[in-house]
Amino acid sequence: MNGSLVLTDDTAAVSKVPWFNASAVASDVRGNGDGRLDLCVVHSMPPCTGAGVFTLNDVEAAPVVLSRRWLTTGEKFHGFVCNSGNANACTGEQGLLDAETMSWEASRKADAPAGSFLVCSTGRIGEPMPMDRIVPGIHECVGTLSHLPAAAQHASQAILTSDTRPKGCLAQWETQGRTLTLGGFAKGAGMIEPNMATMLAFLLTDVKMGQGLLQEVLADAVRKSFNRISIDGDMSTNDTVLLLANGTSEEVVSEKTPQALEAFQEAVGHACLDLAEKIVSDGERITKVVRVQVEGAPDDAAAEKVGRCIGNSLLVKTSWYGSDPNWGRLVHAAGYARVGVRMESVDLYYEDVPALLQGVPQVQNRDGWKEVVSAGRFTIRICLNQGTGACTILSTDLTEGYVDFNKSE
Amino acid sequence: MNGSLVLTDDTAAVSKVPWFNASAVASDVRGNGDGRLDLCVVHSMPPCTGAGVFTLNDVEAAPVVLSRRWLTTGEKFHGFVCNSGNANACTGEQGLLDAETMSWEASRKADAPAGSFLVCSTGRIGEPMPMDRIVPGIHECVGTLSHLPAAAQHASQAILTSDTRPKGCLAQWETQGRTLTLGGFAKGAGMIEPNMATMLAFLLTDVKMGQGLLQEVLADAVRKSFNRISIDGDMSTNDTVLLLANGTSEEVVSEKTPQALEAFQEAVGHACLDLAEKIVSDGERITKVVRVQVEGAPDDAAAEKVGRCIGNSLLVKTSWYGSDPNWGRLVHAAGYARVGVRMESVDLYYEDVPALLQGVPQVQNRDGWKEVVSAGRFTIRICLNQGTGACTILSTDLTEGYVDFNKSE
Repeated sequence: MNGSLVLTDDTAAVSKVPWFNASAVASDVRGNGDGRLDLCVVHSMPPCTGAGVFTLNDVEAAPVVLSRRWLTTGEKFHGFVCNSGNANACTGEQGLLDAETMSWEASRKADAPAGSFLVCSTGRIGEPMPMDRIVPGIHECVGTLSHLPAAAQHASQAILTSDTRPKGCLAQWETQGRTLTLGGFAKGAGMIEPNMATMLAFLLTDVKMGQGLLQEVLADAVRKSFNRISIDGDMSTNDTVLLLANGTSEEVVSEKTPQALEAFQEAVGHACLDLAEKIVSDGERITKVVRVQVEGAPDDAAAEKVGRCIGNSLLVKTSWYGSDPNWGRLVHAAGYARVGVRMESVDLYYEDVPALLQGVPQVQNRDGWKEVVSAGRFTIRICLNQGTGACTILSTDLTEGYVDFNKSE
Repeated sequence: MNGSLVLTDDTAAVSKVPWFNASAVASDVRGNGDGRLDLCVVHSMPPCTGAGVFTLNDVEAAPVVLSRRWLTTGEKFHGFVCNSGNANACTGEQGLLDAETMSWEASRKADAPAGSFLVCSTGRIGEPMPMDRIVPGIHECVGTLSHLPAAAQHASQAILTSDTRPKGCLAQWETQGRTLTLGGFAKGAGMIEPNMATMLAFLLTDVKMGQGLLQEVLADAVRKSFNRISIDGDMSTNDTVLLLANGTSEEVVSEKTPQALEAFQEAVGHACLDLAEKIVSDGERITKVVRVQVEGAPDDAAAEKVGRCIGNSLLVKTSWYGSDPNWGRLVHAAGYARVGVRMESVDLYYEDVPALLQGVPQVQNRDGWKEVVSAGRFTIRICLNQGTGACTILSTDLTEGYVDFNKSE
């Protein structure tokens, strides 16, 4: 890790990134008059190169369809608009028109070229967007953009659904004597809203960078962070991670500046990991966060399969909830990943306490396992001793609270 | 369906299959002295051809390793021995020796060739088998084999773990004026025992049939029944389905007797479906059984993927639990099967009530959907309108009771 990278827990991080402004309003997207912040705009006067990673669900929400399309045009962007309370998913042609209108109204009000605002939505699916409330809300947002921390903080609140707290992260690092900044905020996974939920993350930076490379850096960071978390194994129609670079630092990062590129990759990577961890930790009605570290697999893909089978197994997750050091369920989940696990060569550790060595239970350590899984946060390490493939998945327990929370609208 | 096939709900079905005997004892496998029936033997004096389908989990329990091996030798069998309370899984070399001993002791006591009894176990994993209690139990079982219904019923009880009731099925049909019989019993899915659970099913028949064809018929029936049910998506180390044919009817079924073969396939298929349904209906702390019928997929494999994504989605299962007609979660789960679902061509029905037609919500039917999902048993039909692929998955809801039940030993 680059010695100079400093990561700070900051829900107002956007306000620290030069030339980015934010704002949020309560536009009553949910239509229940609860006065909740539910719409935000982030804006950069200087145009940004943009990158995005989106859900792989066949059923894509309208804002995903449009933002993905716009990002491939090579155009520059001035920001994004995001609402919570309605996912604008399964809304047909009208949904696409509405998402387009959201971008268009933000662009128009900000005196920016049409389509220079990306769009994200999260919330209920299959409901028409209340555009009569959203359009005035967007106008109000653009009219009140601010570089003050409070504005950035409000934006990080406006994107939440059933998250219990806003999530933000500030990364700062030195390159050639210059301080560079990356600020981000995110909302939670866990398919949380009554109908649907979504993982959204936004990253803003003052680095100067071409679109292609920016996309590569983001995709790589997402693969190792947001794509390695699991709360309930469900994939939303709206999942989106955006990265906008407005270049105001004048620090050009490209393949010709390998050191600067490496520092940037590291900053994006750590910021994504940090936000991913915050998302997991705020997962729906969870009581534990568990790091599942798979090593010694035939290859990385096999390690990931094993990690996901363990991290998504209902039996494993319920046993964590019960603080039950149930290595049997872990091994059985590893076995149904079907990557050729050989029981007789499996080592399994709860933190540093061996539970299995070469497949043999270390029953003398039972009290040690129990102590580990009784904590709110712990690591399980499974070494297959079959190769060098490795992967870490961040998972959670499954609680009665989750079932209760999701059982109805 | 062959007009003559009669399916009866019968937990003593084994006693109706000519020349099969059964017995069960309480051998205290669990070591808690609860007096529960936990060991059974089924026996046929005339030797049987055998077929088996086993778990695909990399981590196979010892009895699975051995039974699978024996079935491929082409030898004949005289029956099987099965215990509950201990899965004999993750037990290393000693586990293999113990499973072998179980078979050997049954064979010896029954004056049958060594290895002519198949072995199954279900229960806790990673615990040594209490052979000091199991061996005398096997001797007692073999010594008390009986063709009486009570004995068969006791056997169907002895294999249970957290099932709430025994599950049996009797199929009888006519071929060339002769009545043929197939009797079966099974235990539940849901990975139920504290450490692990298992689906076990045993089918016995008086048909005369070669091993290869018997295996084909069984594999095909299992694929369309036991492999299409889902309670928690977990796959056990011990799952086993056995089919033994003792030929005492003298009715030879082969590829040269297509009508007789078809009638037999139908009997096995229906018996497997019946037992699979009984397993689902007795799933762990469930309150609803849901038939997910996928149609119009590009092909059958795609339909199966969609069905499994829906049937295994935590959000879908919890919404069923809450009697919430949440078509949004269904569509989103279908979407992450990633078989190319086009939202604009999806039709979705709760029983016969349309919820989506060509992707458009039929909100005027909301009360109708609600009524359907409030029932304890209902069908959801999703038509992708993209081809002729179809698949039906039998699933259940996910309840707080499941989480509570599985959270610890």
